[in-house]
Amino acid sequence: MTPDIRIVLIQTSHPGNIGSAARAMKTMGLSQLYLVNPLDFPHPKALEMASGADDIVNQAIVVNDLAHAIGDCTFVAGTSARARTIPWPMQSPRELAESIYKTPQKVALLFGREQSGLSNEELQRCHVHTQIPANPDYSSLNLASAVQVLAYELRVASLAQLPITPAWDYPPATVEAMENFYQHLESVMVATTFLNPKVPRQLMTRLRRLFNRAQPDSMEINILRGILASVANALRSAEK
Amino acid sequence: MTPDIRIVLIQTSHPGNIGSAARAMKTMGLSQLYLVNPLDFPHPKALEMASGADDIVNQAIVVNDLAHAIGDCTFVAGTSARARTIPWPMQSPRELAESIYKTPQKVALLFGREQSGLSNEELQRCHVHTQIPANPDYSSLNLASAVQVLAYELRVASLAQLPITPAWDYPPATVEAMENFYQHLESVMVATTFLNPKVPRQLMTRLRRLFNRAQPDSMEINILRGILASVANALRSAEK
Repeated sequence: MTPDIRIVLIQTSHPGNIGSAARAMKTMGLSQLYLVNPLDFPHPKALEMASGADDIVNQAIVVNDLAHAIGDCTFVAGTSARARTIPWPMQSPRELAESIYKTPQKVALLFGREQSGLSNEELQRCHVHTQIPANPDYSSLNLASAVQVLAYELRVASLAQLPITPAWDYPPATVEAMENFYQHLESVMVATTFLNPKVPRQLMTRLRRLFNRAQPDSMEINILRGILASVANALRSAEK
Repeated sequence: MTPDIRIVLIQTSHPGNIGSAARAMKTMGLSQLYLVNPLDFPHPKALEMASGADDIVNQAIVVNDLAHAIGDCTFVAGTSARARTIPWPMQSPRELAESIYKTPQKVALLFGREQSGLSNEELQRCHVHTQIPANPDYSSLNLASAVQVLAYELRVASLAQLPITPAWDYPPATVEAMENFYQHLESVMVATTFLNPKVPRQLMTRLRRLFNRAQPDSMEINILRGILASVANALRSAEK
């Protein structure tokens, strides 16, 4: 079972912010948008800012009371920038997202007004509060940015089991191939007089550390061997 | 020691996005903004969208070449929405942020054009690529939203008590030192005829990926340059 998540924007002033929030939601795979008493909606600016997420704006459910936006939910979280008089259970966005995916429910995430956020009464409807850990000297995230961060954490939590690294194009070099490369490198350095075998110092150690750190793939080792062979050939030709 | 982090926006079309990105940065405590060839900057729209982050917009450093934005950095990460022909080391935004705080360096985070992102050449300047795990059916994050997500992950990492990797023996090589090394390597490969400049194929791309992955320190780059110089010298002596 996956959680059923809606975003609830309360009394948003600027219709452009509704569109930007819809775009942020869609990039993270969310689609249910509730608007409680938006000041100016519908509005062409909302669709303009939504870019390709106009479906979410068009399907947004507009209500005139917060109760109608969250009545059928089982878990409500409110975003808050300030500490309140009566402390409420707090979760970081990450903790919130992880807990939502650990215990799937019907979830509402509330975002308040651009200027004043959520009222105390609205915050008291929440099970938990969450606060984006912003710069204390300048904590004013744009509404859509706040939606983006929460939606991003939800998406990361939803993908938590999935590896993201794409397949590499060549298999890694074997230890034997690496050893052959190091011997080849050493012999070329001796040939160019860069390495004095009587006073080797830490040269090969440093080169081993460098190339082992990179964990070359088999094609990369072929290229490096090709370079070394071309040096040896060029030296032989020049000597003739 | 804490990492020294800059945000680099490349050829941003809309000045409003520069302002929104500055606001996103400031909410997460970042302040260094570099602009490579912005299409329309300075512009009042940038200051308007920055809201209270106009100091970051006003202090932004405008350059006409990516090299000038990252030359003194030791670690470069590029945001990418697409898989490339030659796979590059990938980190999720979270892994990237954690690694940046585990091993503090001089870091540049690159963000590409609104429509087309970073070019292949720009991506090849990077040590790692990072991809925000967006909805595959609609992955088009607004530029400032992408900055917000990365900056948020950096802030969360900065607030966590991450173990610091023990000190290395030499400082990491700068981007400029790496570029000089790549030019030197290329010229030696041409001299030995390993590289045909008329048919370069993917050779330099693969070598860049290999050495960027290893993140050589300054001593290691000195050694590699020394090997290359010794090859050139040996060829000259042999020709006499």
